[in-house]
Amino acid sequence: MSLKGFQFSAVEAAIKKPGRLDLALIFSQDPAQVAAVFTTNKVQAAPVVISRQRAANGSARALIVNSGNANACTGEQGMTDALECGRRVSELLGLPDDELLIASTGVIGQALPMDRFRKAIQPLVDGVAVGTLEDVADAIMTTDTFPKLERRRGEAGGVGYAIEGVAKGAGMIQPNMATMLSFLVTDAAVDPDFLKSAFTEAVDGSFNAITVDGDTSTNDTALIMANGAAGNPVIKAGTPEGASFLALLHDVLLSLAKQIVKDGEGATKFVEIRVKGAESHADAKKAALSVANSLLVKTAFFGQDANWGRIIAAVGYAGIPMDPDRVEIRFDDVVMARHGIFAGGDAETAGTEVLKQKEFTVTIDLHIGAGEAAVYTSDLSYDYVRINADYRT
Amino acid sequence: MSLKGFQFSAVEAAIKKPGRLDLALIFSQDPAQVAAVFTTNKVQAAPVVISRQRAANGSARALIVNSGNANACTGEQGMTDALECGRRVSELLGLPDDELLIASTGVIGQALPMDRFRKAIQPLVDGVAVGTLEDVADAIMTTDTFPKLERRRGEAGGVGYAIEGVAKGAGMIQPNMATMLSFLVTDAAVDPDFLKSAFTEAVDGSFNAITVDGDTSTNDTALIMANGAAGNPVIKAGTPEGASFLALLHDVLLSLAKQIVKDGEGATKFVEIRVKGAESHADAKKAALSVANSLLVKTAFFGQDANWGRIIAAVGYAGIPMDPDRVEIRFDDVVMARHGIFAGGDAETAGTEVLKQKEFTVTIDLHIGAGEAAVYTSDLSYDYVRINADYRT
Repeated sequence: MSLKGFQFSAVEAAIKKPGRLDLALIFSQDPAQVAAVFTTNKVQAAPVVISRQRAANGSARALIVNSGNANACTGEQGMTDALECGRRVSELLGLPDDELLIASTGVIGQALPMDRFRKAIQPLVDGVAVGTLEDVADAIMTTDTFPKLERRRGEAGGVGYAIEGVAKGAGMIQPNMATMLSFLVTDAAVDPDFLKSAFTEAVDGSFNAITVDGDTSTNDTALIMANGAAGNPVIKAGTPEGASFLALLHDVLLSLAKQIVKDGEGATKFVEIRVKGAESHADAKKAALSVANSLLVKTAFFGQDANWGRIIAAVGYAGIPMDPDRVEIRFDDVVMARHGIFAGGDAETAGTEVLKQKEFTVTIDLHIGAGEAAVYTSDLSYDYVRINADYRT
Repeated sequence: MSLKGFQFSAVEAAIKKPGRLDLALIFSQDPAQVAAVFTTNKVQAAPVVISRQRAANGSARALIVNSGNANACTGEQGMTDALECGRRVSELLGLPDDELLIASTGVIGQALPMDRFRKAIQPLVDGVAVGTLEDVADAIMTTDTFPKLERRRGEAGGVGYAIEGVAKGAGMIQPNMATMLSFLVTDAAVDPDFLKSAFTEAVDGSFNAITVDGDTSTNDTALIMANGAAGNPVIKAGTPEGASFLALLHDVLLSLAKQIVKDGEGATKFVEIRVKGAESHADAKKAALSVANSLLVKTAFFGQDANWGRIIAAVGYAGIPMDPDRVEIRFDDVVMARHGIFAGGDAETAGTEVLKQKEFTVTIDLHIGAGEAAVYTSDLSYDYVRINADYRT
């Protein structure tokens, strides 16, 4: 009962440096429905421009992706290079050009090393007979310290199907989009419009609810290919099968999103920031992101310092309605502040114990409404600085 | 020809710890006009609430300020404590309560150590005969590594006057307001309405054009007291004397603002981010702040990595109109990118040399309009993390 009709391949093209997989291929034996979300950055890498256009057709057969070079801010040459790479792959696979999607991640502003790319394409296509999704997860890593992969199985009309996905993240992680790259595949047959709406909804509650450093990259791409090879009756909106598919999809995306935060550059803590009692969900999310992105809050997490004052200050400048005198702040179950002031008792000691854990939840209850939201973030450590000060060297 | 009619005092109250000046007083022998700007954070410290109200009267005689404790998120007790401190000082000085302004900076969420405060007030008031503005600059420091002070002299109607000021900053530095605390004094006679408009304008081009970490504190306060003791004809808007006063005021504030950035927590670089060719000044400033606050840009500065791609990416998510294909980026005089792509030649080597300096300018020309703005920022170093992870301990 494994995923049907998809093949995978990954090779070492030595795009940035040799010694690792850095070019991957996802191939669907049959045409697949596609839903995709791309970066909101006005500066968009060549592969994003190309894939956005092609994904708009609603179907695709294959995707190539490289790490080590973002092919962003590379002008006409970058576009020419991306198109050539795509054309070489689609020729070997016997596909029309626009059935192939392209993604890149890595350093911005440097031309693709086309000589090495060209040499790698034949082995890449040859490899589809033997590659795995794990290989793809490996090949898309940049400063990631572990590959990110998730699998779920569902059923529609008595027929089993799979949803599987990979992601890479590490830095430049911020809504919208939160991840740099994530690719999902499913052999379920899914109504095209429902696939799009379900994917957008699931991305909002997962990739768009995580933040590492507040930067939004030029290359962010998340997409799903659904090829129907499982042979199930088509899954549609407004049905139990649709609800079940959406739930599984959300599970896969949230798991990948959390893996990205846990592997945030230099992260030593995984923190859920939960805001309750806001006037609206949008306000709650804005406040949660303000806290999650505050350098003072993130360094306090790293220092295991139960400094709830920095948290209430970050809510205060989030630009949402609030009454400081009603705010309650909890670290897991420990009430740190009530009515906007220190809760007293052993809160300092108990709160510090919570912060010594690798994972904990900060709950901020504004007590003025029913709006809620959760975002996931990491702390800010020496290693974040080291990794990003040295990245290109 | 020194500043007339102001006296200063600073004492050791041991508010957070002993061994340093931490409580200061500025006293004007005559009533002074006041203009003030306060934090936009919805969470406001007790002294901010009190001083905002009192400054609205337009005149004051004295200011007390402490470091080591922000008296923020301290509820009713914090308000009671601040009022008591103020009352004790104003009684000793023989002033109505509302002629005294109050400011605090330091840790959030802890009650003021009132016993130590009470003991320190008599010596504080006694000290006005001997203290200096330098003492005040020392007393307001928290994680600052050097005191921040600036002085300028002007002339109006043949009469000389002085504008002098102090500031403290270090962390939580972000428009609006950029500084945590800054106090200016002038012995010039200034029309009250002009004083307010000139101060607001000068703050916009100085404190509101710097950023260290994007956090806005609960205690930010900048104010000027003008007591007219110089005896000049009143300086008014729309006159050469008014223009000259505004220019001097801007000089003092910009100097203090730059000192704050240079002393940003852990800062090893002072960087001017200049955006040109935007559709408007507001767009230019938004883009400049987006670049200045990007962790990836700031860590690249720290690493002396000529990574212009992170800069164009930060402009791309600033949310302003731009055409990536027109963007030009310079490090001092070295063109790093033109038409949105790498400029080639020896730009990499030459750009890296620029970044090895302690101070440099990044110019981003969007080439779509005439809007310009400059902001000043620091890099993000290991020490920023160390300082903020350990601040309370």
